Amino acid sequence: MLEELKKIVYEANMKLPEHGLVTFTWGNVSGIDKEKGLFVIKPSGVDYDKLTPEDMVVMDLEGNKIEGKLKPSSDTATHLELYKAFAEIGGIVHTHSSYATSWAQAGRSIPCYGTTHADYIYGEVPCLRCLTKEEIEDAYEENTGHLIVNEFIRMKKDPMAVPAVLCKNHGPFAWGKDAMDAVHNAVVLEEVAKMAYRTETIQPKVLPAPKELQDKHYFRKHGANAYYGQ
Amino acid sequence: MLEELKKIVYEANMKLPEHGLVTFTWGNVSGIDKEKGLFVIKPSGVDYDKLTPEDMVVMDLEGNKIEGKLKPSSDTATHLELYKAFAEIGGIVHTHSSYATSWAQAGRSIPCYGTTHADYIYGEVPCLRCLTKEEIEDAYEENTGHLIVNEFIRMKKDPMAVPAVLCKNHGPFAWGKDAMDAVHNAVVLEEVAKMAYRTETIQPKVLPAPKELQDKHYFRKHGANAYYGQ
Amino acid sequence: MLEELKKIVYEANMKLPEHGLVTFTWGNVSGIDKEKGLFVIKPSGVDYDKLTPEDMVVMDLEGNKIEGKLKPSSDTATHLELYKAFAEIGGIVHTHSSYATSWAQAGRSIPCYGTTHADYIYGEVPCLRCLTKEEIEDAYEENTGHLIVNEFIRMKKDPMAVPAVLCKNHGPFAWGKDAMDAVHNAVVLEEVAKMAYRTETIQPKVLPAPKELQDKHYFRKHGANAYYGQ
Amino acid sequence: MLEELKKIVYEANMKLPEHGLVTFTWGNVSGIDKEKGLFVIKPSGVDYDKLTPEDMVVMDLEGNKIEGKLKPSSDTATHLELYKAFAEIGGIVHTHSSYATSWAQAGRSIPCYGTTHADYIYGEVPCLRCLTKEEIEDAYEENTGHLIVNEFIRMKKDPMAVPAVLCKNHGPFAWGKDAMDAVHNAVVLEEVAKMAYRTETIQPKVLPAPKELQDKHYFRKHGANAYYGQ
Repeated sequence: MLEELKKIVYEANMKLPEHGLVTFTWGNVSGIDKEKGLFVIKPSGVDYDKLTPEDMVVMDLEGNKIEGKLKPSSDTATHLELYKAFAEIGGIVHTHSSYATSWAQAGRSIPCYGTTHADYIYGEVPCLRCLTKEEIEDAYEENTGHLIVNEFIRMKKDPMAVPAVLCKNHGPFAWGKDAMDAVHNAVVLEEVAKMAYRTETIQPKVLPAPKELQDKHYFRKHGANAYYGQ
Repeated sequence: MLEELKKIVYEANMKLPEHGLVTFTWGNVSGIDKEKGLFVIKPSGVDYDKLTPEDMVVMDLEGNKIEGKLKPSSDTATHLELYKAFAEIGGIVHTHSSYATSWAQAGRSIPCYGTTHADYIYGEVPCLRCLTKEEIEDAYEENTGHLIVNEFIRMKKDPMAVPAVLCKNHGPFAWGKDAMDAVHNAVVLEEVAKMAYRTETIQPKVLPAPKELQDKHYFRKHGANAYYGQ
Repeated sequence: MLEELKKIVYEANMKLPEHGLVTFTWGNVSGIDKEKGLFVIKPSGVDYDKLTPEDMVVMDLEGNKIEGKLKPSSDTATHLELYKAFAEIGGIVHTHSSYATSWAQAGRSIPCYGTTHADYIYGEVPCLRCLTKEEIEDAYEENTGHLIVNEFIRMKKDPMAVPAVLCKNHGPFAWGKDAMDAVHNAVVLEEVAKMAYRTETIQPKVLPAPKELQDKHYFRKHGANAYYGQ
Repeated sequence: MLEELKKIVYEANMKLPEHGLVTFTWGNVSGIDKEKGLFVIKPSGVDYDKLTPEDMVVMDLEGNKIEGKLKPSSDTATHLELYKAFAEIGGIVHTHSSYATSWAQAGRSIPCYGTTHADYIYGEVPCLRCLTKEEIEDAYEENTGHLIVNEFIRMKKDPMAVPAVLCKNHGPFAWGKDAMDAVHNAVVLEEVAKMAYRTETIQPKVLPAPKELQDKHYFRKHGANAYYGQ
């Protein structure tokens, strides 16, 4: 079942080592079939060079495994909460990519310092608080999902305009309109995190890019008046 | 038309990912045929691994598309202004290469700290001011070109001796006697930006290289008394 | 003799350049056959691209060479002390991998700043004191082993929960349940060292990850209640 | 003539891009035949992917070109002075490798922070003063050689124990017993420069490694009592 989606999710997973975003098994991609209410995700702890499309695990939105010989990613409950709350997204990525994870470990949101960031992400990439002891010990992965969703609501952020988040002391999640788009945004996030790191080293007192420049670049690629691309 | 130039501009564009200067579609190269008053530029938002020489777009110096199925780069109006004002240049490159863009985001010109820089670029690589709200909202890409040209005039800089510039909160433009030479200068710029970053980390109070050393290296490679190379 | 182990140790050694952990001959891996009380180790100063499984040297736990045409690694006496004291380990790696060695040169233990670290290493990676003049001049490599063992005892650290250490002004040793697992931990150490470096640059006043988050991640991969992987 | 040496010097030159030490043509290697009093050097400004063994240029120790269609490296006069003064060296390398050049631009000697450095270089890698205006304008490349030689004499440094130097605002020279050994030392220098950079970021108040540890590592690889390697 969902053979086409399994193939796409498999290929999106394989893009992670190709783009240098994962070491060993430290990442996972999922993609959803919204009509059927099912999503496909990487199995837990399987090496990328041994992964096949058939290894992908099919889950429903109550968290039941519908198909698959293997256990799904240990982060499956986080993906599930994001799919339930963010209706427009079609794919999710979690990695420990080096620069984005370093910002998460530092507990800092990534300011928008330039047009590379503004082309894809509207405003800063937020770094959320750590989970509480109770949230960690109770249902860690599910509570990670709740926190992301609740914070996006509280901050009035549109998940399609801010397609990434940093979980403090952990690492990034990114998403997009489908699995490949989510991987694309995860690559952008890592590049943006790297440049922001270097920008602050060159000029410790740097300020974010002017709002009008951020708007110009974001809206020349997104929305009704976009004119970038074909 | 301009089949030879299209091929050269295509190959110059393909050098960008080869030298690690671009992620996804974040860069573009153009080249001009000065006699015909036409320039050839990469189409907007097309992946490098799908690009062909035939995809290149031919533009005139009034900004009209003369040939090509695809839309030209969204930065075409910037290229156009540079070709109109800088009579000696034959090629232009725009990238978001990581170190040069970090200096641009930091809003700092790159000082000449050594001979690697002085071999190619006479004096600092200037970082220009951000565009004003009006300049951004009116004709952003064209005004980027105007700003570069006006600032070079105001600073009395010769574009052939300073073949690169940083646009604040955006990234670098580089140019040269033709499209390949422009790419060469874009690679140099990124290396120089990287070394300057590291130089300041090692010695925060570092001063630029002595003027006489900069002169020696620049003029052993450029002008009537050059003796570097064959 | 020990042909299978020699092959494994050879392959584990070859993983070091593959993962970018060694320049030239700056690293060595060994693996032990606990029943026979013999271990196999890389020969000293042999280039990785000339290494063969037959070049591996067989040693006993009194430090006698049992088989092999070549001299064993100059660090053999350190490996020997670790095997004698840490009964559970089956493989050892020494490298001069760049970030871990930089922490060792800085004389600082690597704090646990996030889940990437906590997934594999319980608490900080300790940086030991330098050897004394007497310890260096007397039996340097053996005394390096004694220091690691004595410090782990003094700090009450379980070598299976903390599978790596930094030797001040020198570099890292890592170990694991076998030679391949030791290499795996050496790769993790380098990634963790790199992220910790970047984390402190982004936020100089950063604190280690909360204890409960470290516990959650360590114990979801290790021990009786682990649920990561297949 | 000198066909064997030309082949070796060619191969040593080709190692520079292989080890990531050069961008474009920014480097050169030479090797000397001491009996004949002739040395072989890369031609000036020739791309590495177009270089052939036949392109190598043969020079005598008065600076006359003895054989070769092409002009020798613009740094030939520096090589010449080093060969005349340092009787034991058989090969010389000049690069603009990124970290070593950054230390040179910062005007700082590289302290010996650990055993990776001490294994190859006895004590710090000295960064010399800039040439004076007169030295630059008179005979720049020859005076660079004089400065290196005079400073080594003044500092009482043995060029075989300190096989590298930094020229302020310029970059490194390295040497060795032959051309390949010189390249080996240039690679070591870049690794050591990188680690020293990172070490100081991790611990700004770091001190050099203890003298007894430097001695131990240097002399376990060099001199009468060496025991590293086969």
